[in-house]
Amino acid sequence: MKIPRPTVKRLGLYYRCLSNYREDGVDFVSSQDIAEKLNIKPSQVRKDLSYFGEFGKRGLGYDVKKLLNEIAHIIGVNKEWNVAIVGAGNLGSALTSYPGLSKHKFRVVALFDNNQQKIGKKVSGITVYDISDLERTVNELKIEIGVIAVPEFAAQHVAELLEKSGIKGIVNFAPVRLRTNVPVEDVDITLSFETIAYNVVKKSSLDLLDTSND
Amino acid sequence: MKIPRPTVKRLGLYYRCLSNYREDGVDFVSSQDIAEKLNIKPSQVRKDLSYFGEFGKRGLGYDVKKLLNEIAHIIGVNKEWNVAIVGAGNLGSALTSYPGLSKHKFRVVALFDNNQQKIGKKVSGITVYDISDLERTVNELKIEIGVIAVPEFAAQHVAELLEKSGIKGIVNFAPVRLRTNVPVEDVDITLSFETIAYNVVKKSSLDLLDTSND
Repeated sequence: MKIPRPTVKRLGLYYRCLSNYREDGVDFVSSQDIAEKLNIKPSQVRKDLSYFGEFGKRGLGYDVKKLLNEIAHIIGVNKEWNVAIVGAGNLGSALTSYPGLSKHKFRVVALFDNNQQKIGKKVSGITVYDISDLERTVNELKIEIGVIAVPEFAAQHVAELLEKSGIKGIVNFAPVRLRTNVPVEDVDITLSFETIAYNVVKKSSLDLLDTSND
Repeated sequence: MKIPRPTVKRLGLYYRCLSNYREDGVDFVSSQDIAEKLNIKPSQVRKDLSYFGEFGKRGLGYDVKKLLNEIAHIIGVNKEWNVAIVGAGNLGSALTSYPGLSKHKFRVVALFDNNQQKIGKKVSGITVYDISDLERTVNELKIEIGVIAVPEFAAQHVAELLEKSGIKGIVNFAPVRLRTNVPVEDVDITLSFETIAYNVVKKSSLDLLDTSND
């Protein structure tokens, strides 16, 4: 089953939205309800969820618990993931204490750095290990996801170290395309700023063109 | 001209790649060269760049300087953008010192918080202002982009304050869909982890199915 990338990205949103419904004791929910909460089109919700078979019942809506279990299974949040962050600077520290991660079953269990002043210290309760202990620590702590929070110039090297250590997937915050054999998800912060700049420029051009309110 | 969202996201990558070529004194570059550097398909590069007219010359490739100017104009990095970060916690502090932003013409000029212990202090040289001074400071410092780096529960309220202050676009790090009339770009860190978890699960299922190497 091949699921389009944008749909995969939205599965996390559906999961969160449905979790809220379950907490509120709601058993069935319509695509309209979900769509309104998430600010997307009902037709998009129906299309996305259709990849996982027929969960919706006409007139009744989606079975919240069934759908939650199915999505949890697909996006892999039916288990806990141990996470290592490489780079104990501002970004690495911010990620270590980011409440959204542990809430969604991503447990930061180790930080790594090559700065002797940081090694052995703790950040938000998490130990900073020597990067040269990566492979051993990844095995001991059963770490599956590695996070790259180091400067751009060091990112490819760290990616190779992570791959060699047996890590299964990488979340990359450095603005560089990595070459690895494990799956990588890029979180390019600057690109988000560039996208918003583009949208602001586009909106002001449209505002200039729009004379219908004159 | 309507440009697909994924193409817009890649424009920043092209911009960066072409800047490197210019710095190296390269005048013309092929779609293959760009594709290889960015680890994407040459056909994708040609398709993306075709939205901006015919910059490529058969046998010669793309004119690096012309294409750079055109993309800079489109993505709005031919000017400097003043940025305000709301939330002077770990994430806000990490963003303030993130070198990629200033390098790409996004200048963080102010932080905002409601914690009296933080107000008036500096983070990486940037003053933390009282959130109640938002509108005045946005006007005085000519701030166009606002960043939401506050906890989830406060995000919608901050978005409304930013909109009221006259900000033109928002980069949102809180895992919540905002309702505003200004463009918003969501940077959902947890979603990136969920996507990588999905890809790791998928890859291990495929590895299990793949018996061709037996």
